[in-house]
Amino acid sequence: MEFYKPAISATLPTMKTILVLGAGRSSSSLIAYLLHQAAQLAWKIIVADFSLEAAKLRVGNSGQGVAMVFDIEHEEHSRNIIASADMVISLLPAHFHPVVARHCLGLGKHLITASYVSDEMKSLDEEARSKGILFLNECGLDPGIDHMSAKQIIDSIHEQGGAITSFESFTGGLIAPETDPENPWRYKFTWNPRNVVMAGQSTAKFLQEGKVKYIPYQQLFKRISHVSVHGYGAFEGYANRDSLRYIETYKLKGIQNMLRGTLRNYGFCPTWDILVQLGCCDDSYILEGVAAMTHRDFLDVFLDGSKIEATEDKIIRQFGLSADGPEMKRLTWSGFFTDEKVGLTKGTPAQVLEHILNKKWALANSDRDMIVMIHRFVFDLQGKSKTIQSSLVVKGEDAVNTAMAKTVGLPMGIAAKLLMQNKIKSRGVVIPTEAELYKPILDELKKLGIEMLEH
Amino acid sequence: MEFYKPAISATLPTMKTILVLGAGRSSSSLIAYLLHQAAQLAWKIIVADFSLEAAKLRVGNSGQGVAMVFDIEHEEHSRNIIASADMVISLLPAHFHPVVARHCLGLGKHLITASYVSDEMKSLDEEARSKGILFLNECGLDPGIDHMSAKQIIDSIHEQGGAITSFESFTGGLIAPETDPENPWRYKFTWNPRNVVMAGQSTAKFLQEGKVKYIPYQQLFKRISHVSVHGYGAFEGYANRDSLRYIETYKLKGIQNMLRGTLRNYGFCPTWDILVQLGCCDDSYILEGVAAMTHRDFLDVFLDGSKIEATEDKIIRQFGLSADGPEMKRLTWSGFFTDEKVGLTKGTPAQVLEHILNKKWALANSDRDMIVMIHRFVFDLQGKSKTIQSSLVVKGEDAVNTAMAKTVGLPMGIAAKLLMQNKIKSRGVVIPTEAELYKPILDELKKLGIEMLEH
Repeated sequence: MEFYKPAISATLPTMKTILVLGAGRSSSSLIAYLLHQAAQLAWKIIVADFSLEAAKLRVGNSGQGVAMVFDIEHEEHSRNIIASADMVISLLPAHFHPVVARHCLGLGKHLITASYVSDEMKSLDEEARSKGILFLNECGLDPGIDHMSAKQIIDSIHEQGGAITSFESFTGGLIAPETDPENPWRYKFTWNPRNVVMAGQSTAKFLQEGKVKYIPYQQLFKRISHVSVHGYGAFEGYANRDSLRYIETYKLKGIQNMLRGTLRNYGFCPTWDILVQLGCCDDSYILEGVAAMTHRDFLDVFLDGSKIEATEDKIIRQFGLSADGPEMKRLTWSGFFTDEKVGLTKGTPAQVLEHILNKKWALANSDRDMIVMIHRFVFDLQGKSKTIQSSLVVKGEDAVNTAMAKTVGLPMGIAAKLLMQNKIKSRGVVIPTEAELYKPILDELKKLGIEMLEH
Repeated sequence: MEFYKPAISATLPTMKTILVLGAGRSSSSLIAYLLHQAAQLAWKIIVADFSLEAAKLRVGNSGQGVAMVFDIEHEEHSRNIIASADMVISLLPAHFHPVVARHCLGLGKHLITASYVSDEMKSLDEEARSKGILFLNECGLDPGIDHMSAKQIIDSIHEQGGAITSFESFTGGLIAPETDPENPWRYKFTWNPRNVVMAGQSTAKFLQEGKVKYIPYQQLFKRISHVSVHGYGAFEGYANRDSLRYIETYKLKGIQNMLRGTLRNYGFCPTWDILVQLGCCDDSYILEGVAAMTHRDFLDVFLDGSKIEATEDKIIRQFGLSADGPEMKRLTWSGFFTDEKVGLTKGTPAQVLEHILNKKWALANSDRDMIVMIHRFVFDLQGKSKTIQSSLVVKGEDAVNTAMAKTVGLPMGIAAKLLMQNKIKSRGVVIPTEAELYKPILDELKKLGIEMLEH
């Protein structure tokens, strides 16, 4: 690996430079947007990744872009490359953000991420403020567009003198209706597959009738909310880990019901719950005999009953299913009852499950993903109880320019542009819940075809 | 705290000395037995505990016993006190055993515990062997009497030329039928309450039809084995964490079914499962609002539904119970539907649950506990399939001289006597699965009224 030697700021002294760390799957729309802006505004975009090939692929033949090798674990090199830019957008795994942030503090550079504010990030707030630096986090889809679109409605209700009593918000990365029409889950991996398999293993916490309530993992996919989106049919939402986190930030103190969750197509959760109940999503121990294991064997090790009973019959009996019902249809489509080898030499239940699911759930080139976000508000206005349902549907173009890449990347790209144009005054560790940020970002997203519709 | 200064071996040069570390609840029968033996054989028993009062209480006015203060975290003092004895019995929490064992290695002293052999303990095997020292572990009830009684039957079947195809073993610390007759759980805390509340949270692993099978926590109290013991009625067994651990030690290679589990009275598990499903046994996060919480509130935070529905009705609905069925009877008896304050200022769900349960499940002075152990063997002998069921029932005398204290303590006491009499040749890290150990220990337990009966 050849490391970058600091030269750019010397050769291009007047050009504004944005550094993007990470050129993986979710970077496509962000980098395309930045390169497009750079061409108009005479900026420079450095795309840096552990893989130079990946960085080159994103930059393409743009005259505004430079592809570079980057290794966050190499301290001097990281500092040099960050020093050469005016601001940084980090798409690295979230646990690297504080490392990047500390370089930015030392060098006086702004930073934008789409990740949740960790305690470590939060602790840098005062220093960033005092140095006049912005660390803008949670500026992707979820968290990101959810914050901005919700807060816009909340502020508008408050301006009219309304009092919000209930807020529910669900977001899901799904597949477009025309994609893979035989797939009864209506789902494929459009995001980190491991996170999908492990989702929900911490107890969920939400607010109901003014009381804090808890849903443990073993109940999570049973206690679902039903949601419908006009023109797109019926969905199910399961609760996220902590729905109480934003009550103060959203200025919703005194609210009675607050729930944030993940959206799946109708029928997904009851089938996923079978895998949860069986123990298939457990990542805490290594299964025995994985090398010789078939898909059918994998389910069978978790099922009660003798080998003279078929795996299908055991599941039907244990969960009171119908043999030709939707749950068995989904499990059968996923190949769980075949004698195909798993194809791993070892693994935890969660790793084996991910590997089996990925055989059918990996996104094909022709597939189009689809983001669905929905907010539901109940509020009192002039003595009357009113409701607003607001929804966003974004479809991907193909397996590279996914709806996920667009909705995660574009808010960061727009924020970066605003920042370079000195249109953002906020400093310190911030999320985009103030009008100064959400208004111009949502306005430009709308121009790019990403807009929430109210009913 | 005044620490012991080594003088005993100087003043009592010829007397054999046994050091007992820990004078807590489960030490009563062991220390009484040792003092009784010591009076006959002119031995000395040192009882050492962090609390001098506790140690004095156990020694009473016996001329053979000495009570001392002991702190395992004080290294020099620990070494001195261990140096003054010929052997050590450690009743300390299991994670301290390796510390004790290292002192014993340095000083050439034998050690007996009732705890599972940890990897750390196991790693001392070679050194202990080379120094001619015995580290006898798993020599209590479960593990302990279960090993000895099972291995005695296994060895006898093998001697007759039989081939064992199935072995199930269950042990439970329960209450005697005449104790607390209104208690519908037929259970009280006779062992560490925290361990009872947290039981089963790791996936259970067992052998069925020659295959390794797994039961996750969320299924553990549903997938129970039904067991009956003549004269004592019906019980339920749920699987322990690792039933495969002793296949080689028991010489059961090639066995088709092997399951070790915990025994509860009939009906316990389906009700306990409700608490598990609700998330009440979770110890991974701090509940909000515990200081103001009532028993009823505690259940309610885990239940789906509005506050206009009674907690009882929510549970009945969510779990499909009958309003006057056995599950509701047990939960009601435990006080879960009262408006009594929990009485803690903060806590995890598991801590709150333990605190509520303890109000009714703490052992009263007049209570008698009861140990039930059962082994079921299936084996082929001379072309025929045969079965043996063997069971042990031991009742406690009162809340001090419990069946738990007897069955955990006496095997260690007997082993200590045999060791002092040079009747045990085994050295190194050992569990009592060889005839040299199990035969004389089971023989003497029988004389003390502790005996498995075969059917």
